[in-house]
Amino acid sequence: MNIKDYTHDQLVDLSQKIRDRIIEVVSKNGGHLSSTIGATEIIVAMHYIFDKSDPLIYDVSHQAYAHKLLSDRWDEFDTLRQFEGISGFTKPKESEFDYFVAGHSSTSISLAVGAAKAIKLKGENRVPVALIGDGSMSAGMVYEALNELGDRKYPVVIILNDNEMSIAAPIGAISNYLSQMSTSNFYQRLKATISSHLKDDSGLKYFAKKLDESLRIITPGILFEEMGIEYIGPIDGHNFYDLLETFQKARNLGKPVIIHVQTTKGKGYEIAEGKLEKWHGVSPFDIKTGKSHKKPSLAKSATEIFALALEEFANENEKVVGITAAMPSGTGLNKLIEKYPDRFFDVAIAEQHAVTSAAVMAKEGFIPFVAIYSTFLQRGFDQIIHDVAIMDLPVIFAIDRAGIVGEDGETHNGAFDISFLRLIPNLVLFAPRDEYSLKKSIKFAATINHPVAFRYPRGSYSKVVPLIKSEFKLGISELLKESSSNILFIGYGSGVSKAYSTYEALGFEVSILDLRFVKPLDTKMLDTLIKSHKYWFVFSDSAKIGGVASAILEYLSSIEHNVKMSTFEYDDSFIPHGNTSIVEESLEIDINSIVKKINNTIKES
Amino acid sequence: MNIKDYTHDQLVDLSQKIRDRIIEVVSKNGGHLSSTIGATEIIVAMHYIFDKSDPLIYDVSHQAYAHKLLSDRWDEFDTLRQFEGISGFTKPKESEFDYFVAGHSSTSISLAVGAAKAIKLKGENRVPVALIGDGSMSAGMVYEALNELGDRKYPVVIILNDNEMSIAAPIGAISNYLSQMSTSNFYQRLKATISSHLKDDSGLKYFAKKLDESLRIITPGILFEEMGIEYIGPIDGHNFYDLLETFQKARNLGKPVIIHVQTTKGKGYEIAEGKLEKWHGVSPFDIKTGKSHKKPSLAKSATEIFALALEEFANENEKVVGITAAMPSGTGLNKLIEKYPDRFFDVAIAEQHAVTSAAVMAKEGFIPFVAIYSTFLQRGFDQIIHDVAIMDLPVIFAIDRAGIVGEDGETHNGAFDISFLRLIPNLVLFAPRDEYSLKKSIKFAATINHPVAFRYPRGSYSKVVPLIKSEFKLGISELLKESSSNILFIGYGSGVSKAYSTYEALGFEVSILDLRFVKPLDTKMLDTLIKSHKYWFVFSDSAKIGGVASAILEYLSSIEHNVKMSTFEYDDSFIPHGNTSIVEESLEIDINSIVKKINNTIKES
Repeated sequence: MNIKDYTHDQLVDLSQKIRDRIIEVVSKNGGHLSSTIGATEIIVAMHYIFDKSDPLIYDVSHQAYAHKLLSDRWDEFDTLRQFEGISGFTKPKESEFDYFVAGHSSTSISLAVGAAKAIKLKGENRVPVALIGDGSMSAGMVYEALNELGDRKYPVVIILNDNEMSIAAPIGAISNYLSQMSTSNFYQRLKATISSHLKDDSGLKYFAKKLDESLRIITPGILFEEMGIEYIGPIDGHNFYDLLETFQKARNLGKPVIIHVQTTKGKGYEIAEGKLEKWHGVSPFDIKTGKSHKKPSLAKSATEIFALALEEFANENEKVVGITAAMPSGTGLNKLIEKYPDRFFDVAIAEQHAVTSAAVMAKEGFIPFVAIYSTFLQRGFDQIIHDVAIMDLPVIFAIDRAGIVGEDGETHNGAFDISFLRLIPNLVLFAPRDEYSLKKSIKFAATINHPVAFRYPRGSYSKVVPLIKSEFKLGISELLKESSSNILFIGYGSGVSKAYSTYEALGFEVSILDLRFVKPLDTKMLDTLIKSHKYWFVFSDSAKIGGVASAILEYLSSIEHNVKMSTFEYDDSFIPHGNTSIVEESLEIDINSIVKKINNTIKES
Repeated sequence: MNIKDYTHDQLVDLSQKIRDRIIEVVSKNGGHLSSTIGATEIIVAMHYIFDKSDPLIYDVSHQAYAHKLLSDRWDEFDTLRQFEGISGFTKPKESEFDYFVAGHSSTSISLAVGAAKAIKLKGENRVPVALIGDGSMSAGMVYEALNELGDRKYPVVIILNDNEMSIAAPIGAISNYLSQMSTSNFYQRLKATISSHLKDDSGLKYFAKKLDESLRIITPGILFEEMGIEYIGPIDGHNFYDLLETFQKARNLGKPVIIHVQTTKGKGYEIAEGKLEKWHGVSPFDIKTGKSHKKPSLAKSATEIFALALEEFANENEKVVGITAAMPSGTGLNKLIEKYPDRFFDVAIAEQHAVTSAAVMAKEGFIPFVAIYSTFLQRGFDQIIHDVAIMDLPVIFAIDRAGIVGEDGETHNGAFDISFLRLIPNLVLFAPRDEYSLKKSIKFAATINHPVAFRYPRGSYSKVVPLIKSEFKLGISELLKESSSNILFIGYGSGVSKAYSTYEALGFEVSILDLRFVKPLDTKMLDTLIKSHKYWFVFSDSAKIGGVASAILEYLSSIEHNVKMSTFEYDDSFIPHGNTSIVEESLEIDINSIVKKINNTIKES
């Protein structure tokens, strides 16, 4: 039966079924929970009102699970976020019903504007719909797109899903503005007063009528209307009567419109309802109790190690400040923000502003740590060059989620940071290899007096024992293991433990270098090793192009050498989602595959 | 005499002197003219009201010439934009009075917010001031910064210099909004009506009083006030009474405030007054007549060649669309925007939105050309990865101003595009070497069916004759000259003519390859050349790290070879401003220096 033939009660039932299915699968596979079950009625209503040919665009798209269930993936949904299974985000390669990839936030309105331009040129009457959470409203892209939309007036429907939460509590003026709109009834009361005056015959009539004209602009949506975009709302996002009527009206409006929809995050799963960050993304859990099945890890995550060491440093040195772009607990800065609210800032999803405002703090003598995931730092690329590096300011970039991140997949893997940062003059790039060296990284980074970035992986470091624990020195690598073999393993960051594990699996001697700095390179050490080692193998959780091996090759090309270099960095393609070990096997960069390749290389020559 | 002791008339005189000096120097050296002389009174007033220790932040900062003249650079100003002379932008290395580097637009409010955080922590009472043009208000960074500022309420003064023009006529809803504010008196009249009712004793009094409360929000600045930022204006930006009073009030406000100042671009130089794009950036000219001293070049600029070929393609194929981010004439798209307003878009200074909205148009079957300068494309980096490349959409990036751009210097050089694009999976990168191949690039790019970027330089191609003119084929290089020598020159883009000129200057035979594609590489050709040529020299106007030579090295490392490679790409530092030839000499990448280096390399071995 086509959803468009459903009765109101059937839509309610369908929503319940969808919610149950999402909770069932996420409780087994882990995934994004509270935002997606909060948006279920909205998405059901979108499918009810809009046509299949209308571009349905989901911002970030982790809230689009209901969409997947409504569009041909009910059974396959069991494989959510598993290797070769259903992606946690919309993905056209997975289904024709997914209009666009979206894993980074705040792209949806730009996408809708682009779609509207195309639709107009084709003379079609499809209407693009963007579903965007209030947390995503802080990023600059949203404003750039609204700025064009309000000017050109394409018929685009923007559904603003306001659950008063992004991943964390949303930050900023726009967010305050939205919550004021919903809590205060001032405008509504004012409007009602005017209306009542319009009806009676008192001397107020003329005056009231004049004012009524102006009242179109003192509706709650004035900020959007001032930008040339109609505003409807706020409406109840769990009430189909409201949703269907409003969506239909918006669909037919022929103008850009924002529908402000209020929802409860986690709606329909009591334990998660209205909860903050905790139920945003979850590991497998028990549905009845809400308890996580995840065994508490003995090893601290790299994020925790970073945050603890940074807290220690912040306690000692009041010049230490920190910035996160809407990932307070993801980056571990949440405790520091609580403890030092004037020194640690969540600037909302706003990586450009995060980087540039940090640059100034460095100029003013502070020691700013900008903690951003590798993949999201791409949003601040120009600012790193233009506002940090040209000025040669000692901003410290703490790059979390470097390397393969697993289930979130291609939009979230931290593959490119070394390559896109290495090309920037004045930057220093290094990577700790384990818990001990990550702890040391924090204070060390503050001694460098240039922009500096260090990276660390999602989750914990492997437990492989490092052999030497020397202090960091700028541009100095650490030779962990010297052997008489002519084989050299060069590890960078978490690649060091991989190099070590590979050595253990190999069954013969090698030398192992922790490169530590990919910029500047320890050319003195490399010069020495050239003499004694012919086969060099590079281990780093990062892209091959422009990466660690490439840095070494650039140096080697300037001198005489006889080195034969191979690297186990990532090939030139986007890395799919799934359990990290399985993904690594599929890429043939797991230990077994690497051992085979090394044996082949040595044998061939 | 300290400027703070000046009388009103002395300030007027000073402004005239400054304007005359700017016109004098720019008429000789070229530079930015109309925005800077339009902002003269504003900047004089800033220096009068604010303290030396207040961070004076100039957005884009080409309007800051008056600031330079007011702060210790009156005489040196003769060297404006010349090598080792005064920079066309603010630059702390040049003067302690320049707070920050700014050559890319829309960073100023982020900088002011960062400064305010630092000032608060230090317990100082300095007040950051950002001077920003209305054209810069469209970029997402502005909104990200306002979003935090309106929430945290730091005392920051934002002076919005509204000349109803960015470099081109500004685009978008915000810009419309600003012009409405200035032309309509609706709010003023409404406010007056209410006030008059408040004074009399009629039955309207209570009602009017209630409404007065709400009127605080129906001031012209409502959009900003809704974001939590006070608004004052619009005021006359050429009237010192208004400027001084308002700036003083704003300086003391203790809250974030936007002062909306209206100015006339080109004010004080009649020929330029109120003119659009033409007088924004100029070559040397005759002050009396306004006529340019620049000899009309016989050779077309790369921009013109691109635009003409694109127009031809657009005439033939209605699927061709194009996007510029506020550089209609800079990228040559202006004529196309006029001719096909539904197909060619100026989306304002909004590179992120430009890229992502283009991605959708490609998905919808169009052939989008995104024409952006190399340096500004950095702003769309994440969007190229996340919205174009993951989807593998055939968006065509036409990268103008690739390589050294000369007088604009370090913030504007197009050094990095090859390195930051090469790491992105699915992208194809190529470069035309001359007028003929640039013409061919346009249609060829549309055949590739993947995201593709091609680059071309500022100005004209050198007139060195290419020897063969074969058609583009994906991933196929062109061997321009084969010799029995064991020396191979590999050129990329405008590097090809440099390779050819170097060969002419050398006095002995070499082979010359036009690489054409840095991604994918023509490995078959490279395999062949390995056998016959030992010394490889790479010519490309781009950064060494991760660049063209690096791409070749990555390939070579996977095979057996005996190649000795050198490259004449840019070293790892920001390239200063000045005449391009002089800058190249200083970097030792002019033909003479290259010839010397080649001779040394050959001699040594």
